[in-house]
Amino acid sequence: MTGKPWYLQSGDEGEIVLSTRVRLARNLEEYPFPLRLDAAGCRRVCEAVSEALADDECFRMVNMEELSPAMAGSLAEKHLVSPEFAAERANRALLLSKDESVSIMLCEEDHIRLQVLHSGLALREALDAAQKIEGKLSGKLEFARDERIGYLTQCPSNLGTAMRASVMLHLPALTRMRQIPRLAQTVAKLGLTIRGAFGEGSTPAGDFYQLSNQITLGITSDAAIENLGAIAKQLIAQERASQKSLCEDIATRDAVFRALGILQNARILGSREFLQALSLVRMGAAQGLITVPMQTLNEQLIALLPATLNAANAGKLSPEERDVLRAEKAREAFADV
Amino acid sequence: MTGKPWYLQSGDEGEIVLSTRVRLARNLEEYPFPLRLDAAGCRRVCEAVSEALADDECFRMVNMEELSPAMAGSLAEKHLVSPEFAAERANRALLLSKDESVSIMLCEEDHIRLQVLHSGLALREALDAAQKIEGKLSGKLEFARDERIGYLTQCPSNLGTAMRASVMLHLPALTRMRQIPRLAQTVAKLGLTIRGAFGEGSTPAGDFYQLSNQITLGITSDAAIENLGAIAKQLIAQERASQKSLCEDIATRDAVFRALGILQNARILGSREFLQALSLVRMGAAQGLITVPMQTLNEQLIALLPATLNAANAGKLSPEERDVLRAEKAREAFADV
Repeated sequence: MTGKPWYLQSGDEGEIVLSTRVRLARNLEEYPFPLRLDAAGCRRVCEAVSEALADDECFRMVNMEELSPAMAGSLAEKHLVSPEFAAERANRALLLSKDESVSIMLCEEDHIRLQVLHSGLALREALDAAQKIEGKLSGKLEFARDERIGYLTQCPSNLGTAMRASVMLHLPALTRMRQIPRLAQTVAKLGLTIRGAFGEGSTPAGDFYQLSNQITLGITSDAAIENLGAIAKQLIAQERASQKSLCEDIATRDAVFRALGILQNARILGSREFLQALSLVRMGAAQGLITVPMQTLNEQLIALLPATLNAANAGKLSPEERDVLRAEKAREAFADV
Repeated sequence: MTGKPWYLQSGDEGEIVLSTRVRLARNLEEYPFPLRLDAAGCRRVCEAVSEALADDECFRMVNMEELSPAMAGSLAEKHLVSPEFAAERANRALLLSKDESVSIMLCEEDHIRLQVLHSGLALREALDAAQKIEGKLSGKLEFARDERIGYLTQCPSNLGTAMRASVMLHLPALTRMRQIPRLAQTVAKLGLTIRGAFGEGSTPAGDFYQLSNQITLGITSDAAIENLGAIAKQLIAQERASQKSLCEDIATRDAVFRALGILQNARILGSREFLQALSLVRMGAAQGLITVPMQTLNEQLIALLPATLNAANAGKLSPEERDVLRAEKAREAFADV
């Protein structure tokens, strides 16, 4: 599932699972945590990690300070970096693989935040890939580690495996049926958390969620992704059944096709409305009401988010111009649906 | 502009003027006004008028009592009869020409309410046609008439020429610019009145209005239609300029195309929402934003009104079924726009 960025393809369980991410946190033994590290120290950490991967041609180094806000925001929208990393760019760098399946944030909360992003549900593959790169790094760098606890991290919540895996789920039916609060409680009891994947607020824009493991101590990474995978599959099954049942109702089909009508006709399209419409169209596509490839939906989802849209236009768009351009791009993308 | 019903064509100034109607009220000298006329008397009046036109093959007699509510309501939606005539059908009959350009309500408020309906702006033609048929009738029937006043009618407001002319105008831009109350005051000073053409309420559904003369006493019919025509032309010019100016705004174009998206995609479509969407699409078509013939818009306007839609389906649709069928018909009609 690599070769192209995750958002330009659709993987396993792709109607519901957009992407899988595995993130490993590591810190270099010889440096203080980033919070207590000065600019020169950060620079040395960035250089050390970069050198450790120097014979790996697939990475390019991005000095975060040199990025425009739109470019940095776009990386966050693509989930290649954290929103915090995109917002606070001083003394930070990013190693990004050509196909964007591997992104290594340097001097984020930890010295190294190694992320592997695959399309669809691919926990095993993503963990394997992450561990392979981690192996390369650990051959050349000394990581802060405690024999008994495991890897040391700036925030105690990551101690141990320092591994967080997450799957990005599209749950329009469970959201409409107001099942998310109940599910959030249930998965919390199982050591997982679910939160909005885009934007803020109680109802995540576009009904996209991140389901991730919370526990990194006293559990192996293998057990953690198995647990996450099993629960993800349950949510997928529940969502699929809920979509089927909802779409039997003409009121849902009405909403789905009206949403398509908005994407095909609007001349001004705000990002929240766009995400709402895309979500309905995505459900319609998953249920066979509308014929549009999941790949196209993933591609447009990311391309029309504010920072990515702005970054593709030299970062010079006003919010009004952005909404007009988003409408234009959406019309082009969905004209033949 | 005859040969087909007004709503299946588009006439002069057709982007703004849907139809022109001239109505002559007449009463038979030898009978009391309908209000004081019993069933047998009504029947005799109906027969007398019908016989007077017996050698005119183009008329068919419709006994209003035999019509279903949906059929009668449909006649009112087509403006072939008054809503009151459609609602209270006892002892009433209708003479309707094949092309529906002439409809003669018998025993409405007056014994004879002769209406001529043409597509577009056609006051002269409609008055000529009405007077021609009136001439036929007056050759065979004795009308109640006062030498000094003119024709006698049940309601004093029609005394004199007993002629009311009206044009049905589509004024979406003036409505959006909140100009209608001001215009209503202005035209009232000029002896005219403007009111919603469909439905009730302060904002007429679909922005369709009837502009008609109020004065029938002390003025010739020719002068009345000249006056009405001149003011109609002013309103047309104002509406056209307002549409042009509104459509330069992308927010208006956004609304126009979203409305088209609704017509092309909805699975449930209430009549009020349908009229709102049709109104915007009609303005878009008038301004060249959307390519759809005015004729199609007129045809769909009438076909998808509640009673007409129901009448076309044996009058058996529930309101929910009607909204689903309306959506289906709208999708068919606007699929290729």
